Amino acid sequence: MTIVVGSNRVVLGANRYGKAEVRCVRVTKHADRHELSDLNVTSLLSGEMEEVHLSGDNAHILPTDTQKNTVYAFARDGVGEIEEFALRLARHFVENTDPINHARVEITEYPWARLEADGRPHPYAFMRQGSYERTCLVHYDAGSASVISGITNLAVLKTTESEFWGYINDEYTTLAETYDRIFATMVTAQWRHTAEVDWARSYADAKRVLLETFARHHSLSVQQTMYAMGGALIESQPEIAEVRLSLPNKHHFVVDLAPFGKDNDNLVFHADDRPYGLIEATVTREDAEAAARAWE
Amino acid sequence: MTIVVGSNRVVLGANRYGKAEVRCVRVTKHADRHELSDLNVTSLLSGEMEEVHLSGDNAHILPTDTQKNTVYAFARDGVGEIEEFALRLARHFVENTDPINHARVEITEYPWARLEADGRPHPYAFMRQGSYERTCLVHYDAGSASVISGITNLAVLKTTESEFWGYINDEYTTLAETYDRIFATMVTAQWRHTAEVDWARSYADAKRVLLETFARHHSLSVQQTMYAMGGALIESQPEIAEVRLSLPNKHHFVVDLAPFGKDNDNLVFHADDRPYGLIEATVTREDAEAAARAWE
Amino acid sequence: MTIVVGSNRVVLGANRYGKAEVRCVRVTKHADRHELSDLNVTSLLSGEMEEVHLSGDNAHILPTDTQKNTVYAFARDGVGEIEEFALRLARHFVENTDPINHARVEITEYPWARLEADGRPHPYAFMRQGSYERTCLVHYDAGSASVISGITNLAVLKTTESEFWGYINDEYTTLAETYDRIFATMVTAQWRHTAEVDWARSYADAKRVLLETFARHHSLSVQQTMYAMGGALIESQPEIAEVRLSLPNKHHFVVDLAPFGKDNDNLVFHADDRPYGLIEATVTREDAEAAARAWE
Amino acid sequence: MTIVVGSNRVVLGANRYGKAEVRCVRVTKHADRHELSDLNVTSLLSGEMEEVHLSGDNAHILPTDTQKNTVYAFARDGVGEIEEFALRLARHFVENTDPINHARVEITEYPWARLEADGRPHPYAFMRQGSYERTCLVHYDAGSASVISGITNLAVLKTTESEFWGYINDEYTTLAETYDRIFATMVTAQWRHTAEVDWARSYADAKRVLLETFARHHSLSVQQTMYAMGGALIESQPEIAEVRLSLPNKHHFVVDLAPFGKDNDNLVFHADDRPYGLIEATVTREDAEAAARAWE
Repeated sequence: MTIVVGSNRVVLGANRYGKAEVRCVRVTKHADRHELSDLNVTSLLSGEMEEVHLSGDNAHILPTDTQKNTVYAFARDGVGEIEEFALRLARHFVENTDPINHARVEITEYPWARLEADGRPHPYAFMRQGSYERTCLVHYDAGSASVISGITNLAVLKTTESEFWGYINDEYTTLAETYDRIFATMVTAQWRHTAEVDWARSYADAKRVLLETFARHHSLSVQQTMYAMGGALIESQPEIAEVRLSLPNKHHFVVDLAPFGKDNDNLVFHADDRPYGLIEATVTREDAEAAARAWE
Repeated sequence: MTIVVGSNRVVLGANRYGKAEVRCVRVTKHADRHELSDLNVTSLLSGEMEEVHLSGDNAHILPTDTQKNTVYAFARDGVGEIEEFALRLARHFVENTDPINHARVEITEYPWARLEADGRPHPYAFMRQGSYERTCLVHYDAGSASVISGITNLAVLKTTESEFWGYINDEYTTLAETYDRIFATMVTAQWRHTAEVDWARSYADAKRVLLETFARHHSLSVQQTMYAMGGALIESQPEIAEVRLSLPNKHHFVVDLAPFGKDNDNLVFHADDRPYGLIEATVTREDAEAAARAWE
Repeated sequence: MTIVVGSNRVVLGANRYGKAEVRCVRVTKHADRHELSDLNVTSLLSGEMEEVHLSGDNAHILPTDTQKNTVYAFARDGVGEIEEFALRLARHFVENTDPINHARVEITEYPWARLEADGRPHPYAFMRQGSYERTCLVHYDAGSASVISGITNLAVLKTTESEFWGYINDEYTTLAETYDRIFATMVTAQWRHTAEVDWARSYADAKRVLLETFARHHSLSVQQTMYAMGGALIESQPEIAEVRLSLPNKHHFVVDLAPFGKDNDNLVFHADDRPYGLIEATVTREDAEAAARAWE
Repeated sequence: MTIVVGSNRVVLGANRYGKAEVRCVRVTKHADRHELSDLNVTSLLSGEMEEVHLSGDNAHILPTDTQKNTVYAFARDGVGEIEEFALRLARHFVENTDPINHARVEITEYPWARLEADGRPHPYAFMRQGSYERTCLVHYDAGSASVISGITNLAVLKTTESEFWGYINDEYTTLAETYDRIFATMVTAQWRHTAEVDWARSYADAKRVLLETFARHHSLSVQQTMYAMGGALIESQPEIAEVRLSLPNKHHFVVDLAPFGKDNDNLVFHADDRPYGLIEATVTREDAEAAARAWE
């Protein structure tokens, strides 16, 4: 598909459109208690979209407003785990709208914990649990789906058992080697499944494995700890083929207290904002097939 | 103190200066475990400050950089509860620097929870606990101090037992009365003490009372629930003279699913961002003396 | 007004409620061009509000939803300058709703500039102008009003003509004196009027005076520059009685390049995030009457 | 490269690491005036990195702290246009550090405008210009480089000449067709060059073309306007091979004022936050070679 713009020939490449950040809250009301799903849903569709770009003809466009309505209408029938909900939505968009041949649905879930009152869990009062979020990313295309689960904004910190030494020294190096430092990060992890699983259990296990590996690992580099976390995740669940991790190194600098006649053996730190280290890797099961599009 | 600027006479009014958001992390290392204080400290000083404003003569200025250094140096000797740390800092600035006669120290503490590994609490690995923060605000002036403790960004939500009806109807009213709605808010509460207490225990009790009152209260208005929370706090601790609360009403709107042939009896909601209701009040013990400056 | 809670007597203190951050955009359509007002309006009302706090009886409550509707309905009749719009809204709430005896209306306006196309200003295409905002704060109470105008998030920076020396040295001082540094800040300024003026002209003049004074002033301290800015504002407009300024000192630290064999005479800086200095003052016309409530 | 973790075989996939958000400000001091470059630099390196992930051996690691130092040291020799600075940094990392074979350098530049004082541009006082930022993304690998320039957070708005009708109606569609609406967006655009150009002039021209096309275009869909903007950019500069655009549709909803006896013919709008439409596309010169990695 090509159009002439002046003396040049311009073509439309990859494109997608949809509704971002639909803030859908679903309450499930049992006789003795309520449950809560607090979601942020983004759908992005693609297909036969030349005309809308070239001429503004919207005949192939399912409006983003309709996508939003669909999220709420589908939520009425129950949400379940976010992976299931994303799959239901993605299949619907592709299978029921002719010009749409690909759907990408991304969901962030904000976890809530039940409050206690009168010595027992309250039936319908909640408090935001943690500052992290559960995520998923689903692609659906020509009858086949990919599912990536994840967690983000997971703030963890170790006060010791983190070292950093033996690195390259060049003319711009001033950093001193250290055998003991704070290791603080905000984990973003995503893992790709090769089969449908018990999503709730898989997520709970994955979160636990990531946290336990972080806690147990004696770190010689952020990369090493990150790789151990990804490897442990693959080891723990046979349906996980690939893990992507992004770990900012949130620097905690030891404050020099010598001018005030005080030592500071890793006791008082300045938590710095920027710049920060940024360490990213993919960890893969050896026999896993590549699936680049699943991550886009 | 007056200067002439052109034909007018201009005078200096209230003023203060200091270092904002000193991100100080203090690790306490016991033989078997580490503990963590993650603080954001702001000090604002005032005193005989005419000259620095008029002529730029800094002879009465304790640099904000020095205030920052002081936070770190004092942290080396131990932090304790944030109210204690703020009091130590405030007293120091006023008592050791002649031109300074008033110090305001505000501290936000980010809570962390110990991670689990191998079936028991880990000695030095932590995870950010909740998304709320503990706060304090201390004023120190001429040998007398005021202490306000607090909590902020405490996200809570009830899926029922919230009503809103019987309000004024004027020509701009379109809102329908409701006998059942979601009540979601992000509590900011501060409470003023009339005596030094066990700050850790007082804070833990206050947080529990606020949450339990929110959970238990059948709400006819946000004001009523907020007043109940403040009243319960005053009732629960004799040293608390005054409570200030600020509760945004984070609207969750029932989505109209009728166009899709579905009912929606408070099951599917749109969590809206803006605008939001904002409800604020002071609740006071009847015999409490006024202390306006403590809150500034 | 007192209620008994257990053995204590708890009373309701100052309170207010309203709708925050109504994002109202008003387009005015002339034959040859459109004009745009992009507003963020917050109304907070107070009055006879005991019952709603005590019993949840909403008979004295004008719902925050109605306040929002009123903003949009009033905008239909034209916005004008934000001070005028805030006054109209505040008067309406107090004069037309019996239990309401005080209204506080705060407006932030996001400025937009007309785009150019075909060599002339476009009639209805705009681009966000600057990163600052115009503000106002109006109180209306028993037939009398106060009006404060302002500007916020006004990022300015001087690469020289800023010094800092001659300050107090105590045991925690490590800062070196400097006769040349970057002065970078994000101005928040508010000014109180004693009479109604041409709000558009007054705002434009005030913004110009603040920026020119910042540019021209050779700074020996942030306080001195801030006071000069406030003094110039009072000097420039007889109806301005009082100015409040808040200036973060956004530190730009000279990077030590000596380890790399390079000098750095105030050429390369690290722009730091936190902590930052914070300098605040009120500057008043000598004969101005106090008006503390106008600022609340 | 494979390691055995338990009974599984885990392999390291794509990985990179570096220093994110180095906030480097460079002042250039001429006799009569100063100039200012305000940068946010992120470098991400990759190469022979198996060992650091597997064993924590840092022998191939150029510390992120060194990368930060390099940014500041190189800035001392002058920054020039951000594309030049990114290229210099990227080449340096790859050519001077054996295990590094790929560098990705991303720079955001915050524009500042010279203040006016005494009727002329001030030599060294500045004000933040606009709320948008200039960006670039450079990859350097085995002697070959790719350069992408861009602009982000460019808020623009049209009050008319935007329509949306003729779209698919399914069972979840409730949106009414419109022949007149507000079109508000926050443009992120990136364009890939096939040759080195006068970066300053290219950027200025690109910004102008994007803004003028937005202003002039009568929009039947966001896609159509976006494609016109990308096409015009390719048309305008022969060295631009590919453009990627991401346009949120920042909804401005007409407020229903009928309950208040007022019409509202596109005059009063609610500027909504979430959800928002999200429209993305790549526009390519017909004969352009693919260069997927340049965008990663």
